[in-house]
Amino acid sequence: MLINCVAYREGRKVAHVELRDVHTYLQQAGTFVWVALHEPTQAELATMQEEFDLHDLAVEDAGHSHEAVARAKIEEYGDALFVVLNTAEFTPTDEIKIGEVGIFVGKNYVLSVRRRTERGFRDVRSRVEREPELLRHGSGYVLYALMDAVVDRYFPVLDAVEAELEAIEEQLFAGDDPRGSIEALYYVKQELTTLKHATAPLLEATAKLFGGRVPHTCAGLGEYFRDVYDHLIRINQSIDAARETVSTAIQVNLAMVQVSESEVTKRLAAYGALVAVPTMIVGVYGMNFAQMPELKWTLGYPLVMALIALIDGLLFYRFRKAGWL
Amino acid sequence: MLINCVAYREGRKVAHVELRDVHTYLQQAGTFVWVALHEPTQAELATMQEEFDLHDLAVEDAGHSHEAVARAKIEEYGDALFVVLNTAEFTPTDEIKIGEVGIFVGKNYVLSVRRRTERGFRDVRSRVEREPELLRHGSGYVLYALMDAVVDRYFPVLDAVEAELEAIEEQLFAGDDPRGSIEALYYVKQELTTLKHATAPLLEATAKLFGGRVPHTCAGLGEYFRDVYDHLIRINQSIDAARETVSTAIQVNLAMVQVSESEVTKRLAAYGALVAVPTMIVGVYGMNFAQMPELKWTLGYPLVMALIALIDGLLFYRFRKAGWL
Amino acid sequence: MLINCVAYREGRKVAHVELRDVHTYLQQAGTFVWVALHEPTQAELATMQEEFDLHDLAVEDAGHSHEAVARAKIEEYGDALFVVLNTAEFTPTDEIKIGEVGIFVGKNYVLSVRRRTERGFRDVRSRVEREPELLRHGSGYVLYALMDAVVDRYFPVLDAVEAELEAIEEQLFAGDDPRGSIEALYYVKQELTTLKHATAPLLEATAKLFGGRVPHTCAGLGEYFRDVYDHLIRINQSIDAARETVSTAIQVNLAMVQVSESEVTKRLAAYGALVAVPTMIVGVYGMNFAQMPELKWTLGYPLVMALIALIDGLLFYRFRKAGWL
Amino acid sequence: MLINCVAYREGRKVAHVELRDVHTYLQQAGTFVWVALHEPTQAELATMQEEFDLHDLAVEDAGHSHEAVARAKIEEYGDALFVVLNTAEFTPTDEIKIGEVGIFVGKNYVLSVRRRTERGFRDVRSRVEREPELLRHGSGYVLYALMDAVVDRYFPVLDAVEAELEAIEEQLFAGDDPRGSIEALYYVKQELTTLKHATAPLLEATAKLFGGRVPHTCAGLGEYFRDVYDHLIRINQSIDAARETVSTAIQVNLAMVQVSESEVTKRLAAYGALVAVPTMIVGVYGMNFAQMPELKWTLGYPLVMALIALIDGLLFYRFRKAGWL
Amino acid sequence: MLINCVAYREGRKVAHVELRDVHTYLQQAGTFVWVALHEPTQAELATMQEEFDLHDLAVEDAGHSHEAVARAKIEEYGDALFVVLNTAEFTPTDEIKIGEVGIFVGKNYVLSVRRRTERGFRDVRSRVEREPELLRHGSGYVLYALMDAVVDRYFPVLDAVEAELEAIEEQLFAGDDPRGSIEALYYVKQELTTLKHATAPLLEATAKLFGGRVPHTCAGLGEYFRDVYDHLIRINQSIDAARETVSTAIQVNLAMVQVSESEVTKRLAAYGALVAVPTMIVGVYGMNFAQMPELKWTLGYPLVMALIALIDGLLFYRFRKAGWL
Repeated sequence: MLINCVAYREGRKVAHVELRDVHTYLQQAGTFVWVALHEPTQAELATMQEEFDLHDLAVEDAGHSHEAVARAKIEEYGDALFVVLNTAEFTPTDEIKIGEVGIFVGKNYVLSVRRRTERGFRDVRSRVEREPELLRHGSGYVLYALMDAVVDRYFPVLDAVEAELEAIEEQLFAGDDPRGSIEALYYVKQELTTLKHATAPLLEATAKLFGGRVPHTCAGLGEYFRDVYDHLIRINQSIDAARETVSTAIQVNLAMVQVSESEVTKRLAAYGALVAVPTMIVGVYGMNFAQMPELKWTLGYPLVMALIALIDGLLFYRFRKAGWL
Repeated sequence: MLINCVAYREGRKVAHVELRDVHTYLQQAGTFVWVALHEPTQAELATMQEEFDLHDLAVEDAGHSHEAVARAKIEEYGDALFVVLNTAEFTPTDEIKIGEVGIFVGKNYVLSVRRRTERGFRDVRSRVEREPELLRHGSGYVLYALMDAVVDRYFPVLDAVEAELEAIEEQLFAGDDPRGSIEALYYVKQELTTLKHATAPLLEATAKLFGGRVPHTCAGLGEYFRDVYDHLIRINQSIDAARETVSTAIQVNLAMVQVSESEVTKRLAAYGALVAVPTMIVGVYGMNFAQMPELKWTLGYPLVMALIALIDGLLFYRFRKAGWL
Repeated sequence: MLINCVAYREGRKVAHVELRDVHTYLQQAGTFVWVALHEPTQAELATMQEEFDLHDLAVEDAGHSHEAVARAKIEEYGDALFVVLNTAEFTPTDEIKIGEVGIFVGKNYVLSVRRRTERGFRDVRSRVEREPELLRHGSGYVLYALMDAVVDRYFPVLDAVEAELEAIEEQLFAGDDPRGSIEALYYVKQELTTLKHATAPLLEATAKLFGGRVPHTCAGLGEYFRDVYDHLIRINQSIDAARETVSTAIQVNLAMVQVSESEVTKRLAAYGALVAVPTMIVGVYGMNFAQMPELKWTLGYPLVMALIALIDGLLFYRFRKAGWL
Repeated sequence: MLINCVAYREGRKVAHVELRDVHTYLQQAGTFVWVALHEPTQAELATMQEEFDLHDLAVEDAGHSHEAVARAKIEEYGDALFVVLNTAEFTPTDEIKIGEVGIFVGKNYVLSVRRRTERGFRDVRSRVEREPELLRHGSGYVLYALMDAVVDRYFPVLDAVEAELEAIEEQLFAGDDPRGSIEALYYVKQELTTLKHATAPLLEATAKLFGGRVPHTCAGLGEYFRDVYDHLIRINQSIDAARETVSTAIQVNLAMVQVSESEVTKRLAAYGALVAVPTMIVGVYGMNFAQMPELKWTLGYPLVMALIALIDGLLFYRFRKAGWL
Repeated sequence: MLINCVAYREGRKVAHVELRDVHTYLQQAGTFVWVALHEPTQAELATMQEEFDLHDLAVEDAGHSHEAVARAKIEEYGDALFVVLNTAEFTPTDEIKIGEVGIFVGKNYVLSVRRRTERGFRDVRSRVEREPELLRHGSGYVLYALMDAVVDRYFPVLDAVEAELEAIEEQLFAGDDPRGSIEALYYVKQELTTLKHATAPLLEATAKLFGGRVPHTCAGLGEYFRDVYDHLIRINQSIDAARETVSTAIQVNLAMVQVSESEVTKRLAAYGALVAVPTMIVGVYGMNFAQMPELKWTLGYPLVMALIALIDGLLFYRFRKAGWL
């Protein structure tokens, strides 16, 4: 579906363009066209391929809707760039959903193809249109703005996962629900792996857009792409730290269960003793020997009961002191 | 066994060729011969070695049928390339079987030697014959097509393993069959290791076919080999993620068993108490003291039984409240 | 808030300068201005940006007070450097707090922007003012002095964490409080991760200030920055060693709990036997058979009791010998 | 001990040489001498050092018989090479024994010094003497032949370890002997570490003998050394895979023990209940209350026994259904 | 404290020198002075700094006695080298103590500053004085001799740790003292970490003294420093292997405890059954039913006792067969 198709010259919007008229603008000096598609049909992609002379393999990558989510990357096809970004957003059921944005960037065009993600880039377009002096850099600046937006949207997702992790952490040492903790930790780890796989390849790819030899369309924007890179490093580092925390927490959870088990064992044993010893004693006086003098004593019964109470009292005191009860 | 031997010129099939006539086509400009063998005899390999002037060590690698499966690699022997790919397919008993394809590529020939794998490359040959404008690139394009096919066939195998892993995951938290879960996880890990060892060396080797200095026969096809590389990266990443999931799942399984054990211990202890306390009480009234007034009471027996019921009721209520029952 | 703004020439203090007069000093040859800000307002930052012609992205990094703590880095913007350092200090509640210092360094100015940290750099200023022959190196030397101070302040923080770890270690083998040990280990690990994330990126960044191509403002100070680097390596190595110790300690703690559990089980079982065997024996003589000769013996009762004592004595001796009691 | 000393020219054996006559052959063009020593005396080594002008440090390395096994390496001393290889073979008691072969290679000599290994290289000498066209490459080819032999002899050793591992694997899930399994896994891991330490340094060293700048004596043999390298990569990969399998198996073993423990606990508890409940019931009718009507019933006793049988039957059925028995 | 101060020319000792006369020898061609200090005072260091024109930062590193042990490194200050080595020796209480040796090397001087280590380098001085042809290489050779000595002294320390580890290993499978084993493993791991931190940085630093561009004072000694490097590699590898063994051993220990626990549980349960079943049976005949025909039988009592013996015999046989007893 076509979302938007606008031509820009000298950093300013010139006109909304019909897809079939794109080529007229492509030939004007200092002008570039920015087309945004969402879940495009094969026909739309074919039109775009013809207009912008895109490479087969790149179009195939951007178009295969049935395939698994593509991996973030930045590829050069001659002077043109093909960039794949992975978006991250929460589904209504609070799961992390990874989408993808394929961006074709040439000297005089930017084509973004959005898939499997609800949130679009209208706000990015508005922002760059308010900064004509920066947009004057051309299509490379649009690429920066899109990458910056995608990367900035990782932060709230990561924050949510980290908050979840902190909640589990508290529960961990309270020891209420070890079964729940471990299940939660498992799913947090999966979420972090998902985020890692979205951001790590992008980190690697972004490093090619500043510093040494950079693609022609990104020239002069090194400090901007380095800024994106810096954000990605931070995200990756936070993800790694969180993953390590999860690993430790799983170990800790196991140890806490073991410690609890050990405490329960001791408590049970103590209560067991409080019942078993009286049972043994009363058994003695249940014997049928002809000659058992105590049985004849008037105070035999209360004395035995008192003895039992005394022994149990003593045991209780010792167990309590040893921390078993 | 010879599967096929065809000469191509300018991207189009020229003729089916007898092995002994191969040399006549090798001398024609712009022509290359594509030979496909399956589990060849030593004699067939010797013929091929003579026709194409293959290096001893490469032929030895492709021919040693008694040896363990070869490792994926790309080696240059002068202008010629020797490529080993590992195929992955399921056996009828649902185990992953790794096969190998040795591919000799020269300026004017491609020789593929398939071993330990059922599935051939007839569909690859059909596909490239339908794309003459690409096949015009020569023997290097056939190499690409074969690598692409081998790599694409990893995806369904990996999908099956991942589906298996998800099934285990569900069972894990249901806690039905920890013994089965752990055995399944162990075998999934072995399968992932098998896949990893098939794909990781290929990833490394493929990187040499685009970018910097590339072998002569692959020149001009950089974007195609980069596409294969990209697929391999994705596969490797998925394998790594799955392996990590397995590791975590083994830990989680251990913790779940421990938690279950702990729960069972508590449940048992609670039921134990419900039996032990009455046993102690009835023991008291089994004592043979001459003076035990309760024994004379008309309602002694029902009162004791009521007391026992009361105590057990109370214990039951407390255990239930503490979540032990 | 402005802390200090001083102009230096030839290694000596020239004058305290008002922010609005900074530009007059910037034009004097061999002179540089060192401005220190603490939690500056947007207005203060804007003034500074104008005076020193700072890059938008760097100012944004130094100014975003609502964001998470920035990551240590060293970035070049043309001839100017933008350095971010992370400070580490203990809060009154003994938690590690990571702050940040953004340092803008140009040929004739140093601007330090301190955030989220109590401790300032007055002592650093005093020290460099006492070493005019070194301060003569210009703004680069001030950068060194600030980095050196930040890095040296890591040592006491790390020492405190290591002392904590040693205390846990002792407790570990005493086995008093496994629950407390594991919780303590978990938090020490978190602290070490926090420190690692403050120091590791700085290590990487510092390596760019000596050796090969170094930024212009740091020229001739290679040995000083290498010294900072050396300290950072040592800190990182200590952190890594401590983290590994924590990991091992968590495993050891788990094993100790298990061993304790095992010992308790044996002890309990031994005591259980000392009670269960007499219970069985007295049960025998509680049977109501008409013909049980022992019941008629005058010494039946004491003999049985002696038998029980004998058996329990024997059991006790065997259990003690086996190390169960 | 001198094993053999032969001069070769143009790929063919010229003569068996006495050690003291070696120098006469060294001066003949196109001739090289191949000397094989086994556990040489200091005197023999000194003679060789003089004849071939070997470097002190290399001779020291090859001669220190009291030291720990040397590490595989390839060192250049001027034009000469000093290569250390580690051999692996089984002792009669089925332990892996690591030996070493020091090989000095110069333009016109090869000296191999074998230590701590039974098996010699007579078969290697025979093989190369049957291939004069290859032996014509000179001393470098002898080096290749020796390395190839040493590396090929790793395969059966590794196969044996892998077979051992598979045997343990089966036992693991049968669960017969967890104590034996874990001990076996521990020793397999040690064996794999031993093999790793023999092969990994050699892998690294071999990489220097082909590709970029290679030592003079190995020139023109790149494809042969690459083949050795390829075998080493495969061995290393197999070792790594096996080590990972061992790690997983240790975890799995732990989990299986835990699962078994859990199952045993349940089984015990079930049987315990089958005994405890009747004990409680019979205790009730052992009470001495004057008024217990059931005691007077003619069928009291059989009814109680029937009740007990009924309850136990019911419990047994429920336990069986729950999978506890 | 000054240990020794000697001037050497052409590889031979010229004279014992007073510290204040050092400068006269420094000016003589082909002469160098080797000074050895042990725990020097600030004054001694200041004298040395003046004589040899040492860099402030290096002297500070070598002099800060209150600081933690310095990290091994090799730094260039102009033409001079500053080397820090870590020594390892056992204290009388058998703990590993890490000391440090700072070595300043210039064209015509070597200054070694030893700290926190008992053992000096008199034997090194004697050795090099016996090899004038090697000492002729000048101050670089002295550096080699010192490094070689420090590195060679690691071997017996490492051997002791490995012997300790083997002793633990035996105990591990005997299963006598799991608590002691784990504590011992923990401390061995700490010792290995200590050794690792002494040797790993040195390994890295030593690599700079041969191969590519080497410091001027070490020129022509590449093979010697490579030999030191080779020893360091071996030490590092042994440490890594030992550390891995410790990790595995900790896991194994945990598993062995678990297995023991499981065995004890079964044994206990078996003995429990041997007591519980008779207790239940005798309880039956303790019931007070009016009509219990067996109670009247003359042989009732011996028959019941025989029944109990029979059942216990049967149980014992079954438990023994199942391996529980």
